[in-house]
Amino acid sequence: MRIHTECYPCFVRQTYNTLKLVTQDEILQTRVLKEVLNQLAHYEGEDPPPKVSQIVYETVSEITGVMDPYEKKKLECNRMAMELYPKLKEMVKRADDPLFMAVKMAIVGNIMDFGVGRSFEMESLDVVEKLDLVVSHYASLRKELSKASKVLYLGDNAGEVVFDRVLMEELDGVELTFAVRSGPIINDATVKDAVEAGINKIARIMDSGCWAPGVLLEETSPEFRKLFWEADVVISKGQGNFETLEDVSREIFFLLRAKCDVVAQLLGVNVGSTLLIRGGQPKRV
Amino acid sequence: MRIHTECYPCFVRQTYNTLKLVTQDEILQTRVLKEVLNQLAHYEGEDPPPKVSQIVYETVSEITGVMDPYEKKKLECNRMAMELYPKLKEMVKRADDPLFMAVKMAIVGNIMDFGVGRSFEMESLDVVEKLDLVVSHYASLRKELSKASKVLYLGDNAGEVVFDRVLMEELDGVELTFAVRSGPIINDATVKDAVEAGINKIARIMDSGCWAPGVLLEETSPEFRKLFWEADVVISKGQGNFETLEDVSREIFFLLRAKCDVVAQLLGVNVGSTLLIRGGQPKRV
Repeated sequence: MRIHTECYPCFVRQTYNTLKLVTQDEILQTRVLKEVLNQLAHYEGEDPPPKVSQIVYETVSEITGVMDPYEKKKLECNRMAMELYPKLKEMVKRADDPLFMAVKMAIVGNIMDFGVGRSFEMESLDVVEKLDLVVSHYASLRKELSKASKVLYLGDNAGEVVFDRVLMEELDGVELTFAVRSGPIINDATVKDAVEAGINKIARIMDSGCWAPGVLLEETSPEFRKLFWEADVVISKGQGNFETLEDVSREIFFLLRAKCDVVAQLLGVNVGSTLLIRGGQPKRV
Repeated sequence: MRIHTECYPCFVRQTYNTLKLVTQDEILQTRVLKEVLNQLAHYEGEDPPPKVSQIVYETVSEITGVMDPYEKKKLECNRMAMELYPKLKEMVKRADDPLFMAVKMAIVGNIMDFGVGRSFEMESLDVVEKLDLVVSHYASLRKELSKASKVLYLGDNAGEVVFDRVLMEELDGVELTFAVRSGPIINDATVKDAVEAGINKIARIMDSGCWAPGVLLEETSPEFRKLFWEADVVISKGQGNFETLEDVSREIFFLLRAKCDVVAQLLGVNVGSTLLIRGGQPKRV
């Protein structure tokens, strides 16, 4: 999905929100913000938003020297989510369909995102029970998983990774890889966050090779790409992965909440809607 | 009040919202938006936000050729407000303190604003009865008005002007001037809007000479400035007028809702708070 006009105001707002975390020096804030405005004014590509996001966050880091503005927030999210972990496991255990419960949980985990400029809000776990998927290709996902031997799971944010772990723990007997960003950007999960969520105990953790808050295939490592094309099932979490992979020619199960107008319109749903949607084409043979 | 870092994301959002009214051509939208980003990136002044706002809206008009993007919306606002007019008059008539009721009404009229990027919302008139002024220098305003012979009333938005008329109709026996912007910008009232609200029947309408969505004194006409310094009472409506006049050395009664963080912080109130606040210094003798 290419960048839309509406993405520009969003990037500027995100920049400001990030700058508030990085420095209280308004002169420095303004200097960085203006450099980002300048970069955006002269950006000429048709890339997906996460590519432009990368340019924005790199600019902030380069000028301020702060490489990981969301470090503390991510740690806090992981800690909060880990406290919920026993409760999440219990809910899955008690569910009539544990896999479906775990899928819903993974989607609720996607609510834990403060990258799009809204304040973080840890909704009550009741949300999981009540979750209304406006599109659900669960039956298809279940069927594909039952035949799968290699599964690639594309992580999204810190905190959310704990919810991803709960879903992955329901995928028995498969060779499981959990892919994360190659470096810190917004609140996206890196190897460190995956390890903090204990995912190393149940899956192989792989740095995708891409630093953007999504999966820009041309920037990923050859090892990642090999697995991406070979995997029997690819599960993709969150909007950033969707924005970068929605037009890729392989079948992908996207689990996400549509967090902005642009993505909601592309999906034909209202902002805030949650979906489990099978995108792309069936796996190439 | 000088521009703050936080104003930049707001300008970019406002630009996008305005562009949606002007054209559905996304290529043109992006071109204009990038030119505004470029202007903001290279803006070096310390002006009040309305000055920068003027640069932004001029850029939109210059490139798109649309001089008054909010023309239809303003007309609609005036029409809706005029439908309420008999009801407003009735409420004032029935009130224990008609002047105070009219003051509250004028402040509620300030809610009719879609310049700051939120959708227009005509709140029920019950709001007038329930209006909670977090700061109210009403007693002082009443006292000053009782002694006044010349009153200058600084208008703000279309639609709102009808509510201003109701307040001005309570100011008996004074020489009354209602000042508006010198040209169309956002949904700010011009002479046309004041006339549509019937203000020509009760006051002299004056174009301030300033095109910005506020009162930049150095850009106003000599005639306006003379009256501004001479008037016994100046009543100023809305945030844009406050942003441009809050540090001027004469007494001004500001009636406004604090619509953004920057202004709310300056006033020491929460966003959304409504105030009747005496600002500036007592009138020079």
